Amino acid sequence: MSLNRLLSENDHPDMAEERRKATFDTDEMAAVIWGSKKYMMRRREITKKVEEHPELHDPYSQAFMTREEGVENAARKATTMIRMLDELGVDPLQFEDVFHLTNEVIGIAGHPLALHAVMFIPTLQAQCSDEQQHWIDLAYNRRIIGTYAQTEMGHGTNLKKLETTATYDPKTQEFVLHSPTRTSMKWWPGNLGKSSNHAVVVANLVINGENYGPHNFIVQLRDLETHQPMKGITVGDIGPKLAYNDTDNGFLSFDHYRIPRLNMLMKHARVAPDGSYTRPPHAKVGYSAMVYVRTHMITHQAMFAAYALTTAVRYSAVRRQGEIKPGCGEVKILDYQTQQHRLLPQLARAYAFMFTGRAVKSVHARVDKDVAKGKVDEMAELHYILSGLKAVVTHLTGEAIEQARMSCGGHGYSKASNIFEIYGVAIGGCTYEGENMVMLQQLAKYLMRAANAAQSGEGLSSLVHYLVKPHEKHSLIDKEPNNDYSAHLLAFEWAARRQVMKAYERLLSLTSRGLSGEEAWNENAVELNRAARLHTRLYIAQKFYDSVHTVVDAGCRAVLEDLLHLHLNYELIDMAYYLLEDGYLSSQQLDHMKEDMYRLLVKLRPNAVSLVDSWDYSDRELRSVLGRKDGHVYEHLYKWAQDSQLNRTQVLPSFEKYLKPMMKEARGQSKL
Amino acid sequence: MSLNRLLSENDHPDMAEERRKATFDTDEMAAVIWGSKKYMMRRREITKKVEEHPELHDPYSQAFMTREEGVENAARKATTMIRMLDELGVDPLQFEDVFHLTNEVIGIAGHPLALHAVMFIPTLQAQCSDEQQHWIDLAYNRRIIGTYAQTEMGHGTNLKKLETTATYDPKTQEFVLHSPTRTSMKWWPGNLGKSSNHAVVVANLVINGENYGPHNFIVQLRDLETHQPMKGITVGDIGPKLAYNDTDNGFLSFDHYRIPRLNMLMKHARVAPDGSYTRPPHAKVGYSAMVYVRTHMITHQAMFAAYALTTAVRYSAVRRQGEIKPGCGEVKILDYQTQQHRLLPQLARAYAFMFTGRAVKSVHARVDKDVAKGKVDEMAELHYILSGLKAVVTHLTGEAIEQARMSCGGHGYSKASNIFEIYGVAIGGCTYEGENMVMLQQLAKYLMRAANAAQSGEGLSSLVHYLVKPHEKHSLIDKEPNNDYSAHLLAFEWAARRQVMKAYERLLSLTSRGLSGEEAWNENAVELNRAARLHTRLYIAQKFYDSVHTVVDAGCRAVLEDLLHLHLNYELIDMAYYLLEDGYLSSQQLDHMKEDMYRLLVKLRPNAVSLVDSWDYSDRELRSVLGRKDGHVYEHLYKWAQDSQLNRTQVLPSFEKYLKPMMKEARGQSKL
Repeated sequence: MSLNRLLSENDHPDMAEERRKATFDTDEMAAVIWGSKKYMMRRREITKKVEEHPELHDPYSQAFMTREEGVENAARKATTMIRMLDELGVDPLQFEDVFHLTNEVIGIAGHPLALHAVMFIPTLQAQCSDEQQHWIDLAYNRRIIGTYAQTEMGHGTNLKKLETTATYDPKTQEFVLHSPTRTSMKWWPGNLGKSSNHAVVVANLVINGENYGPHNFIVQLRDLETHQPMKGITVGDIGPKLAYNDTDNGFLSFDHYRIPRLNMLMKHARVAPDGSYTRPPHAKVGYSAMVYVRTHMITHQAMFAAYALTTAVRYSAVRRQGEIKPGCGEVKILDYQTQQHRLLPQLARAYAFMFTGRAVKSVHARVDKDVAKGKVDEMAELHYILSGLKAVVTHLTGEAIEQARMSCGGHGYSKASNIFEIYGVAIGGCTYEGENMVMLQQLAKYLMRAANAAQSGEGLSSLVHYLVKPHEKHSLIDKEPNNDYSAHLLAFEWAARRQVMKAYERLLSLTSRGLSGEEAWNENAVELNRAARLHTRLYIAQKFYDSVHTVVDAGCRAVLEDLLHLHLNYELIDMAYYLLEDGYLSSQQLDHMKEDMYRLLVKLRPNAVSLVDSWDYSDRELRSVLGRKDGHVYEHLYKWAQDSQLNRTQVLPSFEKYLKPMMKEARGQSKL
Repeated sequence: MSLNRLLSENDHPDMAEERRKATFDTDEMAAVIWGSKKYMMRRREITKKVEEHPELHDPYSQAFMTREEGVENAARKATTMIRMLDELGVDPLQFEDVFHLTNEVIGIAGHPLALHAVMFIPTLQAQCSDEQQHWIDLAYNRRIIGTYAQTEMGHGTNLKKLETTATYDPKTQEFVLHSPTRTSMKWWPGNLGKSSNHAVVVANLVINGENYGPHNFIVQLRDLETHQPMKGITVGDIGPKLAYNDTDNGFLSFDHYRIPRLNMLMKHARVAPDGSYTRPPHAKVGYSAMVYVRTHMITHQAMFAAYALTTAVRYSAVRRQGEIKPGCGEVKILDYQTQQHRLLPQLARAYAFMFTGRAVKSVHARVDKDVAKGKVDEMAELHYILSGLKAVVTHLTGEAIEQARMSCGGHGYSKASNIFEIYGVAIGGCTYEGENMVMLQQLAKYLMRAANAAQSGEGLSSLVHYLVKPHEKHSLIDKEPNNDYSAHLLAFEWAARRQVMKAYERLLSLTSRGLSGEEAWNENAVELNRAARLHTRLYIAQKFYDSVHTVVDAGCRAVLEDLLHLHLNYELIDMAYYLLEDGYLSSQQLDHMKEDMYRLLVKLRPNAVSLVDSWDYSDRELRSVLGRKDGHVYEHLYKWAQDSQLNRTQVLPSFEKYLKPMMKEARGQSKL
């Protein structure tokens, strides 16, 4: 029996051949990837349930739907799925189960209740006072549909400059919500355009002409029966985007729209009937929600990369093109070194990001408890780390997905591959939840404080202890790779330390030349971002390294070590500049790392399909003709295309309207 | 008066401020970019004509069209445009004029007659024998619509393995076209699916059981009156893609479909009525058509990059977010060093690619004449160079476009920016006309032959003369930049030479260890690709350098020198690894290059808008709300969104069907 548990008699022979070569148990690896055998099994149960219920399926490929059809299909599936939770045996409070169910049923383009679940309810739970608890019931039982409206057309990153106002009128004990400018229009919030009848709206609280800054208000947007917008509210869809097109991201503006005083969320700050304002009892820890979301982003990005790579690696195992040995027949494209070099280091990153995501989740769980006790230092630190991780992981994931797509050649370019839709969703992560350049600058702030502490001999957190660690130029990266790659980690540390300290010194030098701190910061921003990236890549390498060494199953650990070692070589070669600069590594050592990388590509090649199979994605979740588990790509490509919108009629209306008259006219002119 | 000729009283004040800072005449620069003042003026005349004819406009944004609507709109515009050529004063034989007209009217998503013009007619012109000239007339007068069908589902890159057969039947003097397998189906040809009634089909010629390899046949696919497929023909659309969705890329298969003997294109090879085969009189030069297409790809890619950068730079001049000096107000995001570093080096690449494209076009024009005289050496060399250029330019253009998009933050993610559509079209260039990895290997073959010649002391073409040029480690890149950047070019040469020779030596070493030539090549493929990339980047830098130094207008030359110097620094820093490896550059020299780069970002900043304005794109051609010439982004973003598909009704059908019942049910359950 094959160690690859997906091997099936229906497999395309080329795919079966791959699966028979597995050197590790793919079920064991799936348990490693998904964190436990229990959750791995749970995912499979849910997948099976969904498979059994056609009412949860797409009637035809989402690729052929108009935007309206997609939105309606998503609404149908989301409401059906919710109604069936009991029947499906899914507890709505089990976040991970609901997450997998949603991935299977909905896919990645969104649905009308997404923000209701992930933003509206959590905000109410966190910010409703005792007398406001009924909102939570209304929302939780879906008697209303809500979202969270913060970003405006003119301001996303700089929240201090949001323009929407909520002016208190003590006479009527109401807030008057108003959008004073075009740029003050709320713009982007998911499900705001057409689905929601309520929203938590972020607006500047104004009392007696004084601005108390952004506060949260619960606002009814649409009539519960007719769904028409309330008077004083302008609301609609902001139009199509790169992806998420089953989601109605919306705009919203207020024309002196009045809401009761008690619609301000008052758990922390309060406004009394007479307009007197009470500050939150203690400075609120603003990091926690952001940190939570970004923590989850890391594993989601890993999943996106693995989606694309599952498709690309499987397709590369059944696509044959060209010969290596003349006369020996066309080879699988996965046999080309260029294809291996395109895909396997990216696959290593997907694993690295998954392990890193898991690691930060557990840090988060721990420090969240500390925050409850008033200890916020580690949460702040986690915030900085995650800012860097968010930026680096989303950027590299985008690269991984596009490499995966292009490695599929022409067919990758078809929506049948579904890889570009994944790219559209994943690459959004570079922009939302904090634009990546801004995120790197956040981490850089932390690193500059650490560099300053390192210079002054102060104590440093373990995260940045490498800044003061004595480093020797090392000679451990040598020609015959043994299984000890700890010297590689030291090289990551060296590169990060050098760049952090160089950026710090440049900052000092710019201010010493008379620039203000802020100007110097801006003129040093690119170097600071480089420092933040190197620090983050070190962090990822460490987490990958540590995680692999805790894996118990010997077969899994062995192949994960290969992946880890590939990762370490590949990343260091990519950042070699920083290592060569001052002779930390010699040209010869780099050449050895390259040779080691090429050796590992060959070594990993036979396990490639099994390493993507281990992510355990169902064909439904993957939604890719090229990524089919059984490898029968070509007949299904043809089957898929037959459903194309343009094939619904043999002759398109444009033939009679435009092309035929053109040809007729031409025949007339030339007297044929 | 401003040197920026676009300055207008309608400009957003932030945009006007930028335009007033121009240090060069944008009309002069437009003439440099478009090759001559005459063509620059011609473009503007055409733009104006199109503006005056509403029947050539889109009724509403293409972003809101379904695929069917898009295809029909494109057919309407294409046929109208053709009918109006006289009235528009455009000569159909003036390729550049038609090209610009098409960019204005159609945009980048394609139209039903595109392949007819760029592939069908040229193929007939090149390959029809004297007795076949009537096909050219039919096609040229658009009495038939045709395309070119080569790629099959199972084979793109490896043309030798195409499976479609054309078997000669001497009894009836017909060829029998047949698709023996699923993978033999023609797949991908543009306009094959629904528009064309004819195609030039590539099939293996079989006579008396002997396969003579691929030949071209003209085949009627659909009835001229009813447009129904002919009996024995299966044809249709292959479904949506990343981009080009107004194009009906198609599939086609044959079930023993018979065509007359004279439907084989017989200018070169011939089949006589009795089935006797005549080889082409002289070995055909297969490079020329490929070279021609790839030559044009380079300038098109430059244009795509400049589309995206025009939008991004303009938007960055009106978007304000965050402060640099506290209390001094929000700054234009273009004032951030990170934003400048994201955009300006990419803008330099757009210029570099435009100049490179122009240079290879003129080489092509020259060597094409030589080919006519039987001199094919330089054409072969041009083929290799263009293989590398195609790969490097498409890859870097994709990077440029995505950086441009992300630099626009959230609004860049909306289809209102139109940048992602440009990305989809441009990035296709990495795959079509030869997959990039394969292209790099083509150039590597040439470089390995050159390396071998260099080793053996043979004479070398000027293209690779740097392989034997004596190089000294140079100290010209020093702290105070004068205006002589020739030392930078030497560094490009050094990097390319080192990697070419290293890859060559590794190839020898692999074969000396017992691998066959082909196996060694595959195990060395990644290093060979690195060599091909470095060679190509040197080539681009040289062309940019040479072109800038021929610009006559002093204002233009000065700012182009800044762009060139930015390019040289940026690219060398990006490839620093190869320069540091053996100490060719010191860490200090690299630091100086960085400082010089940062200096140039600041220096170029005031000209940034004028440098994109100089590409002279009309708002119609750009199709971007964010890239509007006048900078009035926000009100038009709102105006654009109001046309969104989902805003056609205030309440979507899915509310009554799904969301309302869900809320009702919930209210019932909880007895509210």
